[in-house]
Amino acid sequence: MNFINIIEKKRDKGKLAKEEIRDFINRYVAGEIPDYQVSALLMAIYLNGCDDEETYELTMAMAESGDIMDLSEIPGIKVDKHSTGGVGDKVTLIVAPVAAACGIPTAKMSGRGLGFTGGTIDKLEAIPGFSTSLDEKDFIAQVKNTGYALIGQTKDLAPADKLLYALRDVTGTVGCIPLIASSIMSKKIAAGSDAIVLEVTHGTGAFMRDEEKACELARIMMDIGKRAGLNMKAVITDMNEPLGHAIGNSLEVIEAIEALKGTTASDVSEVMKVIIPEMIMAGGKADNKADAWKMAEEAISSGRALEAFRTMIAAQHGNPDVIDDYSLFPKAAVKKEVHAERNGYLRVKDCAGIGECVKLLGGGRITKEQAIDLSVGLEMSAKNGDKVSKGDCLLEIYARNDNEAETARMQYLKSVEIIDEEPEKNVLIYTLND
Amino acid sequence: MNFINIIEKKRDKGKLAKEEIRDFINRYVAGEIPDYQVSALLMAIYLNGCDDEETYELTMAMAESGDIMDLSEIPGIKVDKHSTGGVGDKVTLIVAPVAAACGIPTAKMSGRGLGFTGGTIDKLEAIPGFSTSLDEKDFIAQVKNTGYALIGQTKDLAPADKLLYALRDVTGTVGCIPLIASSIMSKKIAAGSDAIVLEVTHGTGAFMRDEEKACELARIMMDIGKRAGLNMKAVITDMNEPLGHAIGNSLEVIEAIEALKGTTASDVSEVMKVIIPEMIMAGGKADNKADAWKMAEEAISSGRALEAFRTMIAAQHGNPDVIDDYSLFPKAAVKKEVHAERNGYLRVKDCAGIGECVKLLGGGRITKEQAIDLSVGLEMSAKNGDKVSKGDCLLEIYARNDNEAETARMQYLKSVEIIDEEPEKNVLIYTLND
Repeated sequence: MNFINIIEKKRDKGKLAKEEIRDFINRYVAGEIPDYQVSALLMAIYLNGCDDEETYELTMAMAESGDIMDLSEIPGIKVDKHSTGGVGDKVTLIVAPVAAACGIPTAKMSGRGLGFTGGTIDKLEAIPGFSTSLDEKDFIAQVKNTGYALIGQTKDLAPADKLLYALRDVTGTVGCIPLIASSIMSKKIAAGSDAIVLEVTHGTGAFMRDEEKACELARIMMDIGKRAGLNMKAVITDMNEPLGHAIGNSLEVIEAIEALKGTTASDVSEVMKVIIPEMIMAGGKADNKADAWKMAEEAISSGRALEAFRTMIAAQHGNPDVIDDYSLFPKAAVKKEVHAERNGYLRVKDCAGIGECVKLLGGGRITKEQAIDLSVGLEMSAKNGDKVSKGDCLLEIYARNDNEAETARMQYLKSVEIIDEEPEKNVLIYTLND
Repeated sequence: MNFINIIEKKRDKGKLAKEEIRDFINRYVAGEIPDYQVSALLMAIYLNGCDDEETYELTMAMAESGDIMDLSEIPGIKVDKHSTGGVGDKVTLIVAPVAAACGIPTAKMSGRGLGFTGGTIDKLEAIPGFSTSLDEKDFIAQVKNTGYALIGQTKDLAPADKLLYALRDVTGTVGCIPLIASSIMSKKIAAGSDAIVLEVTHGTGAFMRDEEKACELARIMMDIGKRAGLNMKAVITDMNEPLGHAIGNSLEVIEAIEALKGTTASDVSEVMKVIIPEMIMAGGKADNKADAWKMAEEAISSGRALEAFRTMIAAQHGNPDVIDDYSLFPKAAVKKEVHAERNGYLRVKDCAGIGECVKLLGGGRITKEQAIDLSVGLEMSAKNGDKVSKGDCLLEIYARNDNEAETARMQYLKSVEIIDEEPEKNVLIYTLND
C-alpha cells in the first residue's frame, strides 16, 4: 500500500478503509513511514475530519499497536473512569477509592500532566514513597487482593498514540476531535476495563473551551467504546472555574483526602454525586442513582472509602500516615495571601489563567521531561460568585520563593475581578444521554 | 517566531504575513525547521489556499533563497518562455532559436523531466557531446556572443524550491495552484529575464486536467510576475492529445529540427504562431502579431533560425552535424508498427496513456535519479480525428527490445480507439487576456 495514496484520499475528503488505517498505524510504529508523511495526513484529518467508523478503526489500530491489558483474572465488572482534565481536577483521586469501597474492582491507569498542574500520577507522587510503576502481574494481583490499584501507563500501552501525540504536539494538529477521541480511547481500551465513565470538561480551564465541542467529543468517545463492546457513560462538566479549593499536587491530594473524610467543596460534591453512581451502576452494584449514591455515602461515612485509599497507598509503598498528618507532604517554603481590594462579588474571568499561576510556581510541566515541584500551589478561599468584603482573604499562594509568589499573585489578579453584580453561575454538570 | 503558530494560522484559514513567509523559507533552507512541520503547513496550504499576496511573497522568498541571475550585461530585453509541459511538448526547442534569430537575447534555463519523457534538458542531451551545464559566466558570455544559450538549472537557483518540491512530491501536496505557481515563478524570477511568455497546458496529457484550473494557474503566475516587475504573457494550450508526431527524446529533437527547416505538424505550427509572436513583441522587436510572425517566418525560411540552433549546439560542445544527419542520434534497436484494425476515425482517449508508452519503453523517469534511454519513443502517423482505413500504419514504436515494444503497443491500444463518427476537435490554443 502506497502511503501517499492514503494521504491523497483523506486530502480529497475520502473515507479511509480499515486496512488503510491498520497499514498506516502498523507501519508507522514499525518506523517504516516517515514523520513528514504522517504529519501531512494528520493535517488532512484535522481539516477534513474522520467519520465515526474511521475514528473507531483508528482507535482500535492504536490500541492494538501494543499490549492489551488482560484483566480477566480479576472477578467482577471492571470500571474505568477518565477525565479530559482541567484546573484543580482531583476527581479520580476521590471517586476511585469510593468505587473500590463499594466492591468495584478498580484497575486504574492514569497519565502525567502537561499543563497547569501534574496529572493524577504526579499528584500521587506527592505521597512520600509512593510508586506509580507496578508491572502488569503485580498490578493485577493488587486489584485482586485489595480491590484497587492506580498506576501510570505502561510503556507498551498504545505506543502508536505516544508517537502520534508527540507529532501532533509540534504540527498544530492537537485540537482535532477524532484525533483526541482516538488518542484517549485507544489507551482506555488497551487498559482492559469492561465499562468506562467519561468526564468531559469544557470552559476556560478545559482543553475544549466550547461546550458543544465537548459534547461532540463525549459522543464520539462513547461511540468508539460501544463499538468496542464496552459499557459507556459520559458526564459533561463545567471548567470555567477551578474545581474545589486546591490547585497544585500535594494540595489536591489533601483536598481529596478531606473529601474521603466527608468534607468537600460544593462543586466537588456535585461532581462526586454524578460520577460515583454512574461507576457503581456500571459495575452492576446498584440499579438506580439514588441507591448507588446511598452506597457511596455509606462507604464514606463508615470510613471504608478512606480505608481503601490507605490500603492502596500502603500496597504501592507510600506512607499511609499522610492521611492523618498532612505535614508529611512536601511543604512550600513561602505562603502568601491575596486580599480583596474592594467589596463585591468574585468573578473568575479565566480559569486557565488561574491554572497558569501553578505553572509559574513550578507545579506544572511545560515539556514532558520537566520535573515538577509537588509542594507549590493555590488554596482558593473565595470561589466564583462568592460575596467578598474588602480585606477578605481570596487566595493563599504556596511558593518556593517570594519572587515566584509575587509572579503568581499578578497572574491571579489578571484572571479574576470583583464586580458589583452577582455573576451568573454556570450549570456545573449533566449526564449525556445515550 | 514559533513555526507552530504559522502552521496554526494557515490551518485556521489565516493570511500569512510577509515576515512569516520569509521566516519559514529562510529557516527551512537553513535546516532549522524539520520536514514534518513543513509538510503539515503544506497540507494546510493545499486545503486552505493562499491569496495572491501570500503566493507572491512565497515566490519571492523562494527566488531569493539562492542566487538571482544577473543578465544586465546582455543588452536588450531578455525574454524567457515556460511551459507546464505535456506529452510531445518540444515547443521550447523550436521557439527559442527562432526568437534568437529575430534578435531576442535568449538566456534559457530548463528543467529535467519527471514523467512521460525527459524535459528540454534531457532531450538536448540526445545530441552527442552536448553539455547542459555551463557556469554563470560562460552562460552569459555565450548569450552575449551568439544570442542564445540553453542550460539546466544551476544548483543555487531557488534552493527552497528544490527542498519544497521534494517534500511535496512525497506528501500529496503537489497539485496545489499557489504551490505550483510559486515553484515555477521562483525559478523564472531567479533566472533573471525581463519578460516571460507562459504556456499553460490542460487536458488528459497535462498536469492540469481541467481547463479552468489551467487558466487560474496562468492568472496567478502572471500576477506574481507583474508584481515582480516583469512583462508577462500567458497562452493556454490543449494537451488532450500529444503535440506533433514524435514523443521521446531523440525523436522530439528531430521533429524540432524539421520545424526549424520549415516542416511542421499542424498543431505544432499553431502553437508556434502564438508563442513566437508573443516572445518577439515582449522583446520589443515588433508591435503586432502579424509583423512578429512575418519576422519569425523570415527567420525560418532564410535558415537563420536553424543556424541559431546550430551555433548554440556547437557552442555547448554538441555535434551540430546531427542537424543534417539524424543517424547521429542514439538509435533504438527495434522498430515496430501498429496498424488500424478497422476503418473509422482515430480518437485519443487518454493522452497521458500514450505518454505512458514512452515511460514503459525506458524514455521517461519515475524517480529523479533514474537514467533515461534517449533513443526510444513513438512516431504517430495518425492524429486525433484522422480518418484511417484498416491496415493503415497508426504508430511506429522505437524500442530497446521486442518485449518492451509489445508492452508499449498494448498501452497505446488502451489509450486510443477507432470510432465511426468523426470526434470533435478541441480548441487547441488561446491567449489569456490581461
